[in-house]
Amino acid sequence: MREIHVIGIGAGDPEHLTLQAVRLMRSTDVFFVLDKGEVKSDLTDLRREMLRTHIPEGSYRVVEARDPERDRTAGSAAYSPAVGDWRSARADIYERLIAEELGEDESGAFLVWGDPSLYDSTIAILDEVLARGNVAFAYDVVPGVSSVSALVARHRTGLNRVARPVQITTGRRLAEGFPEGVDDVVVMLDAHQAFRAHTDDDVDIYWGAYLGTPDEILVSGPIAEAAPRIEELRAEARERKGWIMDTYLLRRRP
Amino acid sequence: MREIHVIGIGAGDPEHLTLQAVRLMRSTDVFFVLDKGEVKSDLTDLRREMLRTHIPEGSYRVVEARDPERDRTAGSAAYSPAVGDWRSARADIYERLIAEELGEDESGAFLVWGDPSLYDSTIAILDEVLARGNVAFAYDVVPGVSSVSALVARHRTGLNRVARPVQITTGRRLAEGFPEGVDDVVVMLDAHQAFRAHTDDDVDIYWGAYLGTPDEILVSGPIAEAAPRIEELRAEARERKGWIMDTYLLRRRP
Repeated sequence: MREIHVIGIGAGDPEHLTLQAVRLMRSTDVFFVLDKGEVKSDLTDLRREMLRTHIPEGSYRVVEARDPERDRTAGSAAYSPAVGDWRSARADIYERLIAEELGEDESGAFLVWGDPSLYDSTIAILDEVLARGNVAFAYDVVPGVSSVSALVARHRTGLNRVARPVQITTGRRLAEGFPEGVDDVVVMLDAHQAFRAHTDDDVDIYWGAYLGTPDEILVSGPIAEAAPRIEELRAEARERKGWIMDTYLLRRRP
Repeated sequence: MREIHVIGIGAGDPEHLTLQAVRLMRSTDVFFVLDKGEVKSDLTDLRREMLRTHIPEGSYRVVEARDPERDRTAGSAAYSPAVGDWRSARADIYERLIAEELGEDESGAFLVWGDPSLYDSTIAILDEVLARGNVAFAYDVVPGVSSVSALVARHRTGLNRVARPVQITTGRRLAEGFPEGVDDVVVMLDAHQAFRAHTDDDVDIYWGAYLGTPDEILVSGPIAEAAPRIEELRAEARERKGWIMDTYLLRRRP
């Protein structure tokens, strides 16, 4: 039976790898690396470097594939369907990769940034491939250090206040308003800096980009002061590197 | 200058340790282990076992202290003040441990279950000790695999649905009602099985106890069916081991 590991590899720092991740990587025959185009090639390089560091050369294969383009032009209302189409297109690719590149008794792995449970579709795509029934395999999930944990660790703060809830959401959702019933909100996937709508609120922001990598940038403070600085640093870094991955915590002051 | 690491050691599986955690543990002189009494001695043993596995004997010291008892009798309204008193009592102990047990040029570590950012008070207590100004030290936080990530990895599901938020909250909060604006809710610190109030809702539950340990128990399914089974297993396990640590995800069906 083919065996697949979905391995969380941490938020960018190669030292965020867990002992479990390293052990399973060492017994993996084939690594599937889905390249999202030039802007993400830094991330592909980081993964290849992890493999070189921890696994004897010649004991594994890397299979690269091109991720389908997601339709980002359709606007807010069409977001879910576009994701559905994209997931289905991705399932086609995964199915082919598993059927054609993985021998019957081999094990494969997908290396997922952060933790596979947060805003990552690998698990859902593998379930879709299994449901189609064209290729059989067993899979497990190896948890990793999420970018959320990495962010607040670098800022040396907690996610929640004593006995209080915390919500993890997207930039798109935050743009619809500060969530109900919570004072601590972590925002991911925010391409449009939705925090700028809250600069008049009594809120502190803890922001980080390229967490755990040599390019890491951290800014924190009252949002009115920090927001312009983040905008500037973010634009500059994005221009210089060609891509940016950032996340932040918004904390309402009591 | 004294140096302190707050190290997330994962949710129970010793293999959840990160490479960074192991590296810093190897250069740590003193480990502070706060024992919460007999019922938690299994957890103290697990930590000692991690140290024995990864650090040469004789190269470190372990200092045990007794955690102050938290006043759990005061009821809901008094929760925050009781926590405040307890934190302050704990800060007294930490201050003494750092001042008396750690040499001026030594490094110490607190090993925190899961990730130090979620419902853990170590960071806040160290900030309080620093603010008092009686003992100087630098500290950093090493993120770990949270019990939340461990839970959903074992259930092979994500925390959030596509582009949707997820909330992490307490049993006490859930008892006040299913949170507004979210369909996915992770519940921690639930001594009273607050999920039982939702057995008539269209909700799936993903529950886990003693995650990552040989005693791990997992139950998932529609809450109406799963809840009685969880109650039974939970009571039985608690009776047998003398303590329980569990967490769960509630997911409203679309």
